[in-house]
Amino acid sequence: MITSSICTIGDEILIGQIVDTNSSRIAQELGNIGVAVKEMRSIADDHNDIITSLTDALSTCDVVITTGGLGPTKDDITKAALGELFGSKRMVEHPGQMSKVIEKLHSRGLDILDINKLQAMVPEGCEVLVNQFGTAPVMIFNFGAERFGHPATLYALPGVPHEAIGMLPYVMEDIKQKTSLEEVRYRTIMTFGMAESALSKKIEDWEDSLPESMHLAYLPNTLTGVRLRLSVKGMNPEDDEKALDTEIEKLKAIIGDIIYSEQDDTLEGTIGRMLRGTGKTLSCAESCTGGEIAHLITTVSGSSEYFLGSVTSYAVSVKENVLGVPDEVIKEYGLVSSQVASAMAEGVRKLTGSTYAVATTGLAGKEGDEFGNPGGTVWIGVTGPKGTKTIKKQYKNDRIRNIERFAASALDFLRQMIDSDTKSC
Amino acid sequence: MITSSICTIGDEILIGQIVDTNSSRIAQELGNIGVAVKEMRSIADDHNDIITSLTDALSTCDVVITTGGLGPTKDDITKAALGELFGSKRMVEHPGQMSKVIEKLHSRGLDILDINKLQAMVPEGCEVLVNQFGTAPVMIFNFGAERFGHPATLYALPGVPHEAIGMLPYVMEDIKQKTSLEEVRYRTIMTFGMAESALSKKIEDWEDSLPESMHLAYLPNTLTGVRLRLSVKGMNPEDDEKALDTEIEKLKAIIGDIIYSEQDDTLEGTIGRMLRGTGKTLSCAESCTGGEIAHLITTVSGSSEYFLGSVTSYAVSVKENVLGVPDEVIKEYGLVSSQVASAMAEGVRKLTGSTYAVATTGLAGKEGDEFGNPGGTVWIGVTGPKGTKTIKKQYKNDRIRNIERFAASALDFLRQMIDSDTKSC
Repeated sequence: MITSSICTIGDEILIGQIVDTNSSRIAQELGNIGVAVKEMRSIADDHNDIITSLTDALSTCDVVITTGGLGPTKDDITKAALGELFGSKRMVEHPGQMSKVIEKLHSRGLDILDINKLQAMVPEGCEVLVNQFGTAPVMIFNFGAERFGHPATLYALPGVPHEAIGMLPYVMEDIKQKTSLEEVRYRTIMTFGMAESALSKKIEDWEDSLPESMHLAYLPNTLTGVRLRLSVKGMNPEDDEKALDTEIEKLKAIIGDIIYSEQDDTLEGTIGRMLRGTGKTLSCAESCTGGEIAHLITTVSGSSEYFLGSVTSYAVSVKENVLGVPDEVIKEYGLVSSQVASAMAEGVRKLTGSTYAVATTGLAGKEGDEFGNPGGTVWIGVTGPKGTKTIKKQYKNDRIRNIERFAASALDFLRQMIDSDTKSC
Repeated sequence: MITSSICTIGDEILIGQIVDTNSSRIAQELGNIGVAVKEMRSIADDHNDIITSLTDALSTCDVVITTGGLGPTKDDITKAALGELFGSKRMVEHPGQMSKVIEKLHSRGLDILDINKLQAMVPEGCEVLVNQFGTAPVMIFNFGAERFGHPATLYALPGVPHEAIGMLPYVMEDIKQKTSLEEVRYRTIMTFGMAESALSKKIEDWEDSLPESMHLAYLPNTLTGVRLRLSVKGMNPEDDEKALDTEIEKLKAIIGDIIYSEQDDTLEGTIGRMLRGTGKTLSCAESCTGGEIAHLITTVSGSSEYFLGSVTSYAVSVKENVLGVPDEVIKEYGLVSSQVASAMAEGVRKLTGSTYAVATTGLAGKEGDEFGNPGGTVWIGVTGPKGTKTIKKQYKNDRIRNIERFAASALDFLRQMIDSDTKSC
């Protein structure tokens, strides 16, 4: 199996100023093409540290990917170290990247300084992928087998996340070209509402009966639920796709009710795909989730087409005066109740005139209420053309994680209503 | 200077399933006590990889901190490798940790299985810090100078973030006891509204005139603004504190207007501290920020004391019908205008009866509007007992980052109004 090492270069990670999110994304992409990640490292902007660490990584792995150390004020250290490692001390201009530097700076109305021009200089003999998203080129250093005992390739990427992640497809394509990888094909199945342990028990027999060429990976995430990645390698594309189809159908027969997407998507993205182009609209009323549901919905590009708005009613007066929740309902059943969740959803639907509405009322903190609801309780209400439904959920996290779970549960409950309406049309 | 290496153990990081946030927090804490972080690593749950990597780290650093590899189903690999590295193959029970395991499981109503008891077993000869937050102990391995050419200490922590981070104060105390660190004292100053480069230019002369024993670090963050950490080491506690006070006063004379807190706090936390106990209340009206401001405000524990609620008016109809923004104002000035921001803030203040209100209206995506506002423009309105103010901001990020910047700018503008009202009372 092809092995790899991921290395970030830069003091800002070592002093804890930023969290490294690039390495995780790179690891996922490498996994998708069947390359094993053996180790990750973070090192300082220091000539000797760069040489020592990368020599070590190249000695034990086939592929090494670095990010960082290539900004306009820093890249002299990293580039010089990479050049020395590669045995190439002369820097040459890369015309394609130079055009990109000029284009990028002009579009921002900036002058081209010498320090900018230096960004398009690379150690002689390396390959270059022109950075489509910034001024620092991606450099590829190919080492023959004589150097580290096996052929090895080093990819040096910029550290800015959207540049590094944006260039990954090109890097993955280059790795596929240069190594003899078995083709990996995979499907991502998004589930919500069942914990990883319970899910794995439920699909145990199916998993055990998978063909040997197939592999199932669990990628759990609080906000999006458990992602399942089913991958296959070794046959031919057509048979692989058929085999995946067959197994996914079997899986859907077991857990179809909790699958919300067969592509790598979020709950709010899935809801967007369901509503866009239908003329149907959405609003929400939030209490304990305090705006998180509306925030998630509006992170989806194009959400203004179907999202009308929301009311966050933290105070009882707002629940009553803005959403029209009757005072006697609150007094009789308590704020955290099915009745209030219904009334809030129906109230905001009426207020905005939306097709669907979702509402939450609950206790995000540790304290319970006088009606016996413990902290972590939420009632969710959804309403639409065919009526109103409510559901109660109970979590045991801290305030911020409870809010996240409440919001995700509400989006999933809403998705189920829209889905069922769409199917019954 | 004392040097350190931080190492995470576990496949879940290497396959990109989770992002490692522990290392960043550990690095910050080490920086606070004056220990330099030389490198970070992530390695697999593999005996040989653990031995090789930790030998390498201990050979070059005084202190090595590992997290992970200590769950009930996995710790046989990590613990056996640590024992071998330490030259101690016998496992012994640690009575303090065993009591903790029993206590933890009983409190959850669970039976004690053999697999749980194994968690309290540690390689003979290591020191133990009983984990206050979980079942896996923190193990300390002290190596004499003969082993790696210098005395070295290895701290093995569990991987669960709240356990690892929760145990850090004890670990830092142990490091301080065992090494001859100069005491570091520091202050954190939170600023908002000036980019790191402009800020560094503005305080350049002050920074250059700092005593040699003092060091200034920039910790920039999109959401909270630039944090400045001023640290001092080497004198005595009283003089150090005085010296810090003197320099902070000088700094406030230069950039006092952009400092929002002298403790490590967020904008929403600062607003909470200003409003709590005053009887004053808050509401908001959001358009382009889609609920993010309300979400941030309600992540603060105790926010229900002063936060009444919010309206997210994505559709024009909601702006008009719920918030009462006059149709002719929208037609004349456009949705993204000072007039609409004012009307939204005043509308939601009237609707909820709050003391203060903040509103946003803008364009989070790349597209501009027909009034000539480019994408990334936001108008912010704040209103209170002394009137209404608006401000326009312009950013050039992607949709999600623009929303974050808009929300943070709005919170800062609100903070300024509350601050100025409080001072003039």
